[in-house]
Amino acid sequence: MNLFRVPREFLMGDNIYKLIELTGTSSTSLEDAIQNAVTRASKTIRQMRWFEVIETRGTIQDGQVTQWQVILKIGFALED
Amino acid sequence: MNLFRVPREFLMGDNIYKLIELTGTSSTSLEDAIQNAVTRASKTIRQMRWFEVIETRGTIQDGQVTQWQVILKIGFALED
Amino acid sequence: MNLFRVPREFLMGDNIYKLIELTGTSSTSLEDAIQNAVTRASKTIRQMRWFEVIETRGTIQDGQVTQWQVILKIGFALED
Amino acid sequence: MNLFRVPREFLMGDNIYKLIELTGTSSTSLEDAIQNAVTRASKTIRQMRWFEVIETRGTIQDGQVTQWQVILKIGFALED
Amino acid sequence: MNLFRVPREFLMGDNIYKLIELTGTSSTSLEDAIQNAVTRASKTIRQMRWFEVIETRGTIQDGQVTQWQVILKIGFALED
Amino acid sequence: MNLFRVPREFLMGDNIYKLIELTGTSSTSLEDAIQNAVTRASKTIRQMRWFEVIETRGTIQDGQVTQWQVILKIGFALED
Amino acid sequence: MNLFRVPREFLMGDNIYKLIELTGTSSTSLEDAIQNAVTRASKTIRQMRWFEVIETRGTIQDGQVTQWQVILKIGFALED
Amino acid sequence: MNLFRVPREFLMGDNIYKLIELTGTSSTSLEDAIQNAVTRASKTIRQMRWFEVIETRGTIQDGQVTQWQVILKIGFALED
Amino acid sequence: MNLFRVPREFLMGDNIYKLIELTGTSSTSLEDAIQNAVTRASKTIRQMRWFEVIETRGTIQDGQVTQWQVILKIGFALED
Amino acid sequence: MNLFRVPREFLMGDNIYKLIELTGTSSTSLEDAIQNAVTRASKTIRQMRWFEVIETRGTIQDGQVTQWQVILKIGFALED
Amino acid sequence: MNLFRVPREFLMGDNIYKLIELTGTSSTSLEDAIQNAVTRASKTIRQMRWFEVIETRGTIQDGQVTQWQVILKIGFALED
Amino acid sequence: MNLFRVPREFLMGDNIYKLIELTGTSSTSLEDAIQNAVTRASKTIRQMRWFEVIETRGTIQDGQVTQWQVILKIGFALED
Repeated sequence: MNLFRVPREFLMGDNIYKLIELTGTSSTSLEDAIQNAVTRASKTIRQMRWFEVIETRGTIQDGQVTQWQVILKIGFALED
Repeated sequence: MNLFRVPREFLMGDNIYKLIELTGTSSTSLEDAIQNAVTRASKTIRQMRWFEVIETRGTIQDGQVTQWQVILKIGFALED
Repeated sequence: MNLFRVPREFLMGDNIYKLIELTGTSSTSLEDAIQNAVTRASKTIRQMRWFEVIETRGTIQDGQVTQWQVILKIGFALED
Repeated sequence: MNLFRVPREFLMGDNIYKLIELTGTSSTSLEDAIQNAVTRASKTIRQMRWFEVIETRGTIQDGQVTQWQVILKIGFALED
Repeated sequence: MNLFRVPREFLMGDNIYKLIELTGTSSTSLEDAIQNAVTRASKTIRQMRWFEVIETRGTIQDGQVTQWQVILKIGFALED
Repeated sequence: MNLFRVPREFLMGDNIYKLIELTGTSSTSLEDAIQNAVTRASKTIRQMRWFEVIETRGTIQDGQVTQWQVILKIGFALED
Repeated sequence: MNLFRVPREFLMGDNIYKLIELTGTSSTSLEDAIQNAVTRASKTIRQMRWFEVIETRGTIQDGQVTQWQVILKIGFALED
Repeated sequence: MNLFRVPREFLMGDNIYKLIELTGTSSTSLEDAIQNAVTRASKTIRQMRWFEVIETRGTIQDGQVTQWQVILKIGFALED
Repeated sequence: MNLFRVPREFLMGDNIYKLIELTGTSSTSLEDAIQNAVTRASKTIRQMRWFEVIETRGTIQDGQVTQWQVILKIGFALED
Repeated sequence: MNLFRVPREFLMGDNIYKLIELTGTSSTSLEDAIQNAVTRASKTIRQMRWFEVIETRGTIQDGQVTQWQVILKIGFALED
Repeated sequence: MNLFRVPREFLMGDNIYKLIELTGTSSTSLEDAIQNAVTRASKTIRQMRWFEVIETRGTIQDGQVTQWQVILKIGFALED
Repeated sequence: MNLFRVPREFLMGDNIYKLIELTGTSSTSLEDAIQNAVTRASKTIRQMRWFEVIETRGTIQDGQVTQWQVILKIGFALED
């Protein structure tokens, strides 16, 4: 589905991708929760290419949403 | 899944939680639609702890998204 | 589900609606990706009334989310 | 989805709706089983606006369907 | 789910039930398609107790629905 | 699944079918809501062959079901 | 599905049932987590008739399961 | 999935397996409800090899779970 | 869905079909695994009309796929 | 998901894609059934980019699979 | 969902969690099968926090359940 | 489900298996796309035992399927 505007350089071969499942959180927005998961994962995983949102959640305190939470699948290329 | 940073005070017992399903709407953003549902529910429900998004929708008029809509499950502690 | 604040004029009859599936993308936010799909569709489709989000995804480059992607169902009235 | 011909008066605000799950039964038809659930719910719930069918079932005796059963979600407006 | 008005005599033991999947058709209504499947099954299966509708379909000819079709699960007691 | 009694003339080739998603409504019954969607579609689509019900819903006013609503997939042959 | 051995007295009419969603926890077993949710609910709800397990989960500490958690739907009769 | 410790003797060929759906009940535990279904089925079916739990339910009386109920798929080898 | 090119002779009535679930295996291809299940079933079942693939799997040994496995639903006409 | 080796030229913009649902059939293989649907669609649709298989089925006659059938979603770029 | 009684010490930050999928088996009970998977995982994974049951299965020999099998998702904190 | 013909040597214990998710591609067939994913994974993972197909997709260029794509779950034994 995420064909649209994929960076060119990793489209040239027949890569195998692995998908992992991660959570991400943020006190500001859903987009920020997603980016935080990706940022943390990038410390140890190279070649991440796409994500998909599996679940969207959050915590509530005193009638306020205090944390936005997402569960993501992230796909990254296995290097040869 | 929403283990991450849950407020301390309600973790001390073996509470039973009830889940209810609510809609929320906003003309500005998905996060705002969620917060509006939580704000309205807080008028009559105490001890809300978390939500999860079941469905994301909206209305369109003249080619513009005019309302963001969410269907949420909200969990709250049953008080003894 | 999206009963809430539907524009009055299209509620008066027994219209038949068609649902189509579209993707939308944005480099800024999920809401913007949704609006972009709706804007593009409005070039050729009149009478669009609502959307629902089927899938939320995106691309990653160098540890950054570079594109937000959605797959939508959009409902529009068939004109007599 | 149920945009089509919604009564005008409850479309004017940004209501929050609650969804509940009920069963209904009838010895005559599926439509009657649905109406029976709605009729019973209307004794205690005001402002019901829509339903959706979650499950369709029934009982059989001596090779005859003796009862039509439905499980519904019903949405109603939370009053301010 | 189909607790409601189950015939008394088969509630007294700890029966084991088997579920089978059947189709049924009718040119008149969905209820009739369900009853036709149950009627046919009753030729060889005794002790049928309940059904649930898995799928609802039909055929179209010249802009008319010409046949209503259902796929059912039917539960019946295994006799000792 | 809808093998049963398909009109003979369109079984002779290796047709390709397209599936579209439509809503239908009626104030009388679910079968009527389905037929209304099919009737409207037949104004512009030829060679419709089958439908399947994706969702069953309705609107409620003053404790009465006022409109039966269905979402259908309809399959029709692409002509050469 | 839960036809088997339903108590006789509530099978005599055409009751309408409501379904609610609750969590239950236990440090000993899944059955105990279910019973705890039912016990707590019985403080305020009469005429509960059946449950179904929606989700089975738990918490882990130091490599040990420290809490068994279930999410249940519970059906109870609406009294006239 | 149930590769782990499968009895050796039925792994030697290219058997075809049939899957059937059964219910089981017990007043003591979920494991006992599963075993009861398997025990009953073994009266008429040979060569049963595995089961999977499709649904977990039960009945409630006076605030107590009085019966544990499961719906199983059971796989058995078709003998040549 | 499998309207397309159904053999004529079994379309003339209002047959009732039964659906059963079978596994099939092959060391060569997925198509062969499907055909093997159908071939085995044809020893005892007449009037099989269609199948649908429920699950596609296989075994791996030393980095090679050694067996292709499918789980099918097969529909066959109940004879009068 | 289908990032891997997408043709370069259509990755350069922020295209909007439409998804349609089609059937395809073949008497030889599943791959051939997919290709046949794509070939037929290419008569009227330009810029098709990807497909995904929604359902895999077929017809059986005299114990032989006589036709392989697939239901596909196909994505194509909306041209400006 | 598993808010209830989460150990305090890992709630203080904005941890990112990874979810992995494991099987577990036992000859005695479902709870034991879950604990065995967790015990094995704890040899190499620290900071496991919760699990959820994805599938419940088992093997049968001579009419007896000989092995209880579960497939779990386990969430653990990524350490900084 | 994949009991059928599992290699004997890994059935003797109470192994714990881990499941991972991988993509595979091929320009020739679906079977080849599966084998390619397994082959690549075998460079770093030992003791792979089974796979299941989660999704089947592909890319299209000029009306031709140019790449077959699968998403697999692969199970492998955790060594002690």
